[in-house]
Amino acid sequence: MKTMKISDFKNLFDKKSHSFFESLDLSNLLKTSLEYSFFSGGKRLRPWIIYNIGRYYDIDEEKLLKIGFATEIIHTASLIHDDLPAIDNSNYRRGNMSNHKKFSEWRAILTGDLGFILPFKIFAEFDDNESRYLNAFFSETILNLIEGETLDVAFEKNIIKPTKSDIENMYRKKTSALFEFSFACSPLLLNKKEEFNSLKKAGKNFGIAFQIYDDLKDIYGNFEDVGKDLNRDENKFTFLKILSPEKAKIYANNLFSETISILLSLKFIDFIEELQKIKSLIERK
Amino acid sequence: MKTMKISDFKNLFDKKSHSFFESLDLSNLLKTSLEYSFFSGGKRLRPWIIYNIGRYYDIDEEKLLKIGFATEIIHTASLIHDDLPAIDNSNYRRGNMSNHKKFSEWRAILTGDLGFILPFKIFAEFDDNESRYLNAFFSETILNLIEGETLDVAFEKNIIKPTKSDIENMYRKKTSALFEFSFACSPLLLNKKEEFNSLKKAGKNFGIAFQIYDDLKDIYGNFEDVGKDLNRDENKFTFLKILSPEKAKIYANNLFSETISILLSLKFIDFIEELQKIKSLIERK
Repeated sequence: MKTMKISDFKNLFDKKSHSFFESLDLSNLLKTSLEYSFFSGGKRLRPWIIYNIGRYYDIDEEKLLKIGFATEIIHTASLIHDDLPAIDNSNYRRGNMSNHKKFSEWRAILTGDLGFILPFKIFAEFDDNESRYLNAFFSETILNLIEGETLDVAFEKNIIKPTKSDIENMYRKKTSALFEFSFACSPLLLNKKEEFNSLKKAGKNFGIAFQIYDDLKDIYGNFEDVGKDLNRDENKFTFLKILSPEKAKIYANNLFSETISILLSLKFIDFIEELQKIKSLIERK
Repeated sequence: MKTMKISDFKNLFDKKSHSFFESLDLSNLLKTSLEYSFFSGGKRLRPWIIYNIGRYYDIDEEKLLKIGFATEIIHTASLIHDDLPAIDNSNYRRGNMSNHKKFSEWRAILTGDLGFILPFKIFAEFDDNESRYLNAFFSETILNLIEGETLDVAFEKNIIKPTKSDIENMYRKKTSALFEFSFACSPLLLNKKEEFNSLKKAGKNFGIAFQIYDDLKDIYGNFEDVGKDLNRDENKFTFLKILSPEKAKIYANNLFSETISILLSLKFIDFIEELQKIKSLIERK
């Protein structure tokens, strides 16, 4: 099984996403603003993971693309809400104006709401048992994501004074949850419990590592590379408040290695190769 | 089958809702604010409809209460977002401080997000086919609700200049959608298509009538009765911008009568009696 390069996958996925959007019968006002944020430059890392792991399990490609689409929509929705003035107050996202800057705040709020619901409409198109499995795991995932975002803001506003393990818990919820879903949704569909648990763990480790690489980028990057206001994260509680950049990087690399071990035990060799390229890409950028 | 009075039902439902909340394993920060809005004085009209119509179909009461709970949660979530400064900017709701006034804006946004997801976690506890039916109908319902809210704000901000039929379309989406779901979810679970369609229509008519009664109350009520800032709706596009209060009331009464006819054809006699009492209550208050 040849794992698709992420750049090739992005072309395929974005093309497919346009046709998914067409089939959704959305009102124009929200469709425009959701599509704006959706197509504004994401790497499609989560859908790429879903698609390529799912192919090892021989799951229908159309289904994998649909699950990836649902995941990317909710990721988009949560970023739209995170950027709002009352939360992160970000004017830019991936080098473009954030949704509320472009379309005004009321539309950004309602566009996010729409994005939180759409995946469930998409999952209702699956078979009965697949649909229930997806809904159960996905709703659990998104509740974690929202809780992680809540902790993040609560740390920043000094409502909670976090320990290292609180920060790790926040990362796990805010960033890892959706990666856990992306790594593990294929064995879930086939009710392969052991592989589900292994891949969930791979997703968790990958997510935390990914978040740390992202934090490091915010320190060393420049606007062109990062595409958002830098040092906005000054008041954010990241590992970098507790560990030196060097130690944080070692910590992240260890977590990444654990992900690789799990993938190796499943013999996802081709996938590992591409994932390692993506890791270098994330670190460099 | 004896239809439960709405006041008795509210006691039962609120008690049950506390135990549902306990079982949901939510983070404290969002749980507190969601419960604040959830238990801040709703009539429980939608869960009452679900419960009492569902009993005609012999659906398990625990299931009906769960569906009612899910519906009331999303209703609460949508009101929390509607009240935000960027949308309706309401300081009060049902005589209490609105969520963002009490807990700050960032928590209100994330609490609403949580409320948009929770119902799907609840529906994942149903049987495979029930779960998929509920998810499909419910996600469609909430997409309509969000679109209705979008139209409402777009009219108010003069982005769209609405005709009477645009306003009716907005009412149908913003208010009727959840009533359609409440009236029709029981035959949906049993896959009784004809009764599903009839009850959906009953819910649609009831919802529009209900919204008009509510508009009339905003004109004639006082703060104690209505529990929110009056005349906030000045810039809102309601039927009262197009019809005199007398004509609007006749229009609403006709829609209500159509609802009754449908219920009569299904021989829901006892339910009709209680619904008529509720109608008088809504009009008086």
